[in-house]
Amino acid sequence: MGTHALAQTSPLPSWHDGPARKAIIDFVRATTSPHNPKFVPVHERIATFDQDGTLWVEHPIYSQVMYCLDRVPAVVKAKPELANVEPFKTVLSGNHEAIAHLSMDDLLKIAAATLTGMPVETFRAEAMKWIAQARDSRWKRPYTELTYEPMQEVLKYLRANGYKTYIVTGGGQDFVRVYSERVYGIPPEQVVGTAGGVKYAYDANGKPFLTKEPKLLLNDNDAGKPEGIHMMIGRRPRVAFGNSTGDQQMLEYTAAGDGARLAMLVLHDDATREYAYGPAQGLPDTKVGAFTQALYDEAKKNGWTVISMKNDWKRIFAFEH
Amino acid sequence: MGTHALAQTSPLPSWHDGPARKAIIDFVRATTSPHNPKFVPVHERIATFDQDGTLWVEHPIYSQVMYCLDRVPAVVKAKPELANVEPFKTVLSGNHEAIAHLSMDDLLKIAAATLTGMPVETFRAEAMKWIAQARDSRWKRPYTELTYEPMQEVLKYLRANGYKTYIVTGGGQDFVRVYSERVYGIPPEQVVGTAGGVKYAYDANGKPFLTKEPKLLLNDNDAGKPEGIHMMIGRRPRVAFGNSTGDQQMLEYTAAGDGARLAMLVLHDDATREYAYGPAQGLPDTKVGAFTQALYDEAKKNGWTVISMKNDWKRIFAFEH
Repeated sequence: MGTHALAQTSPLPSWHDGPARKAIIDFVRATTSPHNPKFVPVHERIATFDQDGTLWVEHPIYSQVMYCLDRVPAVVKAKPELANVEPFKTVLSGNHEAIAHLSMDDLLKIAAATLTGMPVETFRAEAMKWIAQARDSRWKRPYTELTYEPMQEVLKYLRANGYKTYIVTGGGQDFVRVYSERVYGIPPEQVVGTAGGVKYAYDANGKPFLTKEPKLLLNDNDAGKPEGIHMMIGRRPRVAFGNSTGDQQMLEYTAAGDGARLAMLVLHDDATREYAYGPAQGLPDTKVGAFTQALYDEAKKNGWTVISMKNDWKRIFAFEH
Repeated sequence: MGTHALAQTSPLPSWHDGPARKAIIDFVRATTSPHNPKFVPVHERIATFDQDGTLWVEHPIYSQVMYCLDRVPAVVKAKPELANVEPFKTVLSGNHEAIAHLSMDDLLKIAAATLTGMPVETFRAEAMKWIAQARDSRWKRPYTELTYEPMQEVLKYLRANGYKTYIVTGGGQDFVRVYSERVYGIPPEQVVGTAGGVKYAYDANGKPFLTKEPKLLLNDNDAGKPEGIHMMIGRRPRVAFGNSTGDQQMLEYTAAGDGARLAMLVLHDDATREYAYGPAQGLPDTKVGAFTQALYDEAKKNGWTVISMKNDWKRIFAFEH
């Protein structure tokens, strides 16, 4: 659909009328109207989106963590000596409760073993294959179908109005780049994520290749988000969407710029259609996507708009249509 | 000029007919013709360009090194104790010969002192001011007028044919981003360069800001170029232009991909209109832009096209018109 056609239809059809939908539409209209004092030139129209919990389901476990766990048998097959070494032994046991209690250190060891040490093309092929085959345990669908339809509409609406849309994720940059173009219409070069180093070398035939290394270059969470945005984009965003404390600094940095800025937070408050978690609604926090009371208070104080999945979204997923 | 209008006129008017111009035009026509076996989908049309010596003059000294030297008095004014410390003492002496003999270690100390330790906005404002005022010693013009008109035509020609153009420079990413959009039509987010870390913090009023730190994240030279391309772009380029050994790996990596690829090297062989340097033409090498005999031999062996500034370019600069 072209810009003109989209402008003619009512934008954001999966959103209920309400303050969240209105905040988005008012912002876009003001910043794209040449005579409006809030007008933003096209080249400054940068919009950044957290992924997990903001664009797609993150509960009960990040899909990239599932990828890493699913890769462990292949890693152990290649290096049998790992079979009796923790945390690989626990993962191979299939004991769900023990796996759920792995520490962050254990998860980092699993990430290093499953995400690094291979050529970038090998990683890409493996991740693509997994993304096509893996299924979420609740909806029995590929993870890539669990994107939020209202957020897909925001991405398209912003792009139709000259905004360049970026994913800025704590997830692995190389992992998200595998499917971002197909799933979100966001090309690899507009994905900023947690990034490890790669090393250039030549194979036996003199052909160059890049190997993924277990060296962290950017931890794209918390303060790492604005730092990564500076490195990878080099402009302060006009728009930022997030859903947890890991997005707080990205929203602060976005909102602190001059002129019109839009900062929004997705609140998971719909246990029926998706999940409800986070102390901001009196529910226990989870390991992932901490929407704390402090974040809620900061949002209110700073005028960031909180999106209620329950009240603002007519439908959550495209397959509900 | 729109895509259609450009397609109607003869492309690359500042180029003489010859193998270099033909290589570019043949590549673009083949990769943009849907029924050609070399066709490349629009989203894969990535073109990367070294800057110094490829898009603008690098001789006798990189303009960013001039920037750093010019900033030393201000740095010493803020920290007077540096006045008697090397290498700052030598720079302040104004002794051109001694300055020309500063070691790489000295230059790195000067770079750290002049490019880091300030908010990113302060750096940007200072660099913008310098870029507007500084003049090249030979042409008495701003450095930004010393871009090569034939290469500006290549950038526009590629963009008119759906290629996304990137600068991939050993120079400072933040420095080049200050002027890349105005000078080359390349936005900051399409500049990959040597990059230092930034640190997120809050000022006394609680407003967040980013400070440039003396921590190297990416040395975007040699193998660092394909490594940086993977991190910042995430796709292998279809097109790469360079002019020195620092670009060798970027050209190798580009050319090693499947399907149509274009790898080209600018040879500085025009002492009258610009400069002639590098042993590939029997002239002594310089500190900068080493087009070595080995690079020349590799170009010939791999079928990379060498651009002779003397024979392939009708004019070097736009102001010659």
